[in-house]
Amino acid sequence: MQRIALDAMGGDGAPRVIIEGALSAVREWPDRFAVSLVGIPERIHAELPAEVPGAIQIVPASEVVEGHESPVRAIRRKPDSSIVVGLGLLRAGEVDAFISAGSTGAVMAASRFLLGMLPGVERPTVGTMFPTSGSPVLVVDSGANIDPRPTHLLQFAQLGSVYMRDLLGLERPRIGLLNVGEEPSKGGARAVATHKLLQDDEDLHFVGNVEGHRIVEGACDVLVCDGFVGNVLLKFYESVAGFITGVLEDRLDPEIHGEGLREVYRTVDYAEYGGAPLLGVNGVSIVCHGASSARAIKNAIRVAGACIESDMVEDMVAEFGPATRRARVWRRIRRR
Amino acid sequence: MQRIALDAMGGDGAPRVIIEGALSAVREWPDRFAVSLVGIPERIHAELPAEVPGAIQIVPASEVVEGHESPVRAIRRKPDSSIVVGLGLLRAGEVDAFISAGSTGAVMAASRFLLGMLPGVERPTVGTMFPTSGSPVLVVDSGANIDPRPTHLLQFAQLGSVYMRDLLGLERPRIGLLNVGEEPSKGGARAVATHKLLQDDEDLHFVGNVEGHRIVEGACDVLVCDGFVGNVLLKFYESVAGFITGVLEDRLDPEIHGEGLREVYRTVDYAEYGGAPLLGVNGVSIVCHGASSARAIKNAIRVAGACIESDMVEDMVAEFGPATRRARVWRRIRRR
Repeated sequence: MQRIALDAMGGDGAPRVIIEGALSAVREWPDRFAVSLVGIPERIHAELPAEVPGAIQIVPASEVVEGHESPVRAIRRKPDSSIVVGLGLLRAGEVDAFISAGSTGAVMAASRFLLGMLPGVERPTVGTMFPTSGSPVLVVDSGANIDPRPTHLLQFAQLGSVYMRDLLGLERPRIGLLNVGEEPSKGGARAVATHKLLQDDEDLHFVGNVEGHRIVEGACDVLVCDGFVGNVLLKFYESVAGFITGVLEDRLDPEIHGEGLREVYRTVDYAEYGGAPLLGVNGVSIVCHGASSARAIKNAIRVAGACIESDMVEDMVAEFGPATRRARVWRRIRRR
Repeated sequence: MQRIALDAMGGDGAPRVIIEGALSAVREWPDRFAVSLVGIPERIHAELPAEVPGAIQIVPASEVVEGHESPVRAIRRKPDSSIVVGLGLLRAGEVDAFISAGSTGAVMAASRFLLGMLPGVERPTVGTMFPTSGSPVLVVDSGANIDPRPTHLLQFAQLGSVYMRDLLGLERPRIGLLNVGEEPSKGGARAVATHKLLQDDEDLHFVGNVEGHRIVEGACDVLVCDGFVGNVLLKFYESVAGFITGVLEDRLDPEIHGEGLREVYRTVDYAEYGGAPLLGVNGVSIVCHGASSARAIKNAIRVAGACIESDMVEDMVAEFGPATRRARVWRRIRRR
């Protein structure tokens, strides 16, 4: 059984949609997941059916971190919040993964603090799956690091590469650098320096710069960018998909075209990919969209299961651990 | 008559689609435009019909700037290129506007050099219209300035505001700052400093930060961002629109849904807006997408006409000229 701690209090629809997601996960994959709903017991009980499946249990946490709170301050002031309690379970080895649709900043800060960073990794990053015409592309960073250094971006590429290898079974994930042109000289100082670092890393399958229009073509498996651009793109993508399908809905007869539209929604729906892993911390910690549906939560549980099963964290340790060739290369880069 | 110099040699489909665009403009709006096709006469003649409309004439230019050339070097080495000759006509007052689908970098460099900057304006910017659910939003900068300073971004907002006032007749265009959150503290040093400058400019109708998902909602009329993000967004938008309509086409019966799909294409088609004005130079200089269709060229001619008719350049001079209150504010900012 894969043991998941799920923040029942985080997200716009919490606790109801979170609990619905947990219920549908344990129903769809029986004997695979044991889900601990972390939060205020009365509020959780109110949403649970009379017959609670055996795979679901409640872990009490009396406090809730709100979206507007300063992440670091919130986790210090609220030691009995669902985020801190849930990550405490993971730290203590009582669960194998933690999932939250609450404040991404607070989950990041608490994960860093409670789980710690993987040896050699400087900053955690959030990777988000973008649907494309082929298999999805992991965009790192999608909002956690607004102003990263080129060395950080190199590490995001390395972490993303392990993630896509483990999760999608890609042997050599293709790494692309988001840029405004194909030539290595394009995009300003940060992009040029990052291009060189990616090019020089022999363990990465770097395919060069990727321009905006080549993302949905599936030009790479991991798209490296700073969190400002990544966050803008992510939010823009979701809204454009809704906008275009909205234009269509106004003009097409739903009786006739309903199935086609639903298929489009599915193709471009972030919920299909569930949550976004926090990469670089010492444990499986998954952040979900604040507006997550029950289906998104269910899929986040599936993603957490895949991270656990593939030994993602151990693979990242092997990639970055002090004994590896990459660590030696890294020390050389840092000394420059 | 509005006199337009059109670079017949620039763009993927040149000279054929450029000439087609010119022909359809003078047919659609007779007695409004006189178009000078600038380029290699034999190649232009080969694409013209036997009966050339009186509103079309050819201005010879023996050289062509290629996309891969360094912009500044190319315009120096090719004084008889269609870009330099066409902008020379504008500088000499023989035409009222210049349009090119060739190298944006070369058009920018040559416009700056031949037309000069408007007094008080530090850098030219390219503004591109994004279709939204309401009226379009002008994204400045959409690729010309990869790493602008906050003071540059303030000027882009001011130029964009005049453009949208003159072109769309908006009384007080709403200015938004592209960012990763709504709070003024979001987005790193550049965004925070720019937010303050925009907030402090009493002549601008600043509506605050705009996140990625609010662009297509029409949250603002002018969206301010650096050219890296703007360029990535622009290319991404075009491709996502194509991707989603492609998904639909695969699943819908074109016999039944053809009209709906065509409507979607029109809604999200950049060609509807034609070209992007180069803002801040002393003249109407319009850059078009390299892949411009004849319809995009025709619409760029229409946009050029609107710029001429509304006295856009004169209005910008009034906005930035040394006698204005804004110029005094600007001098104060620069002294800080």
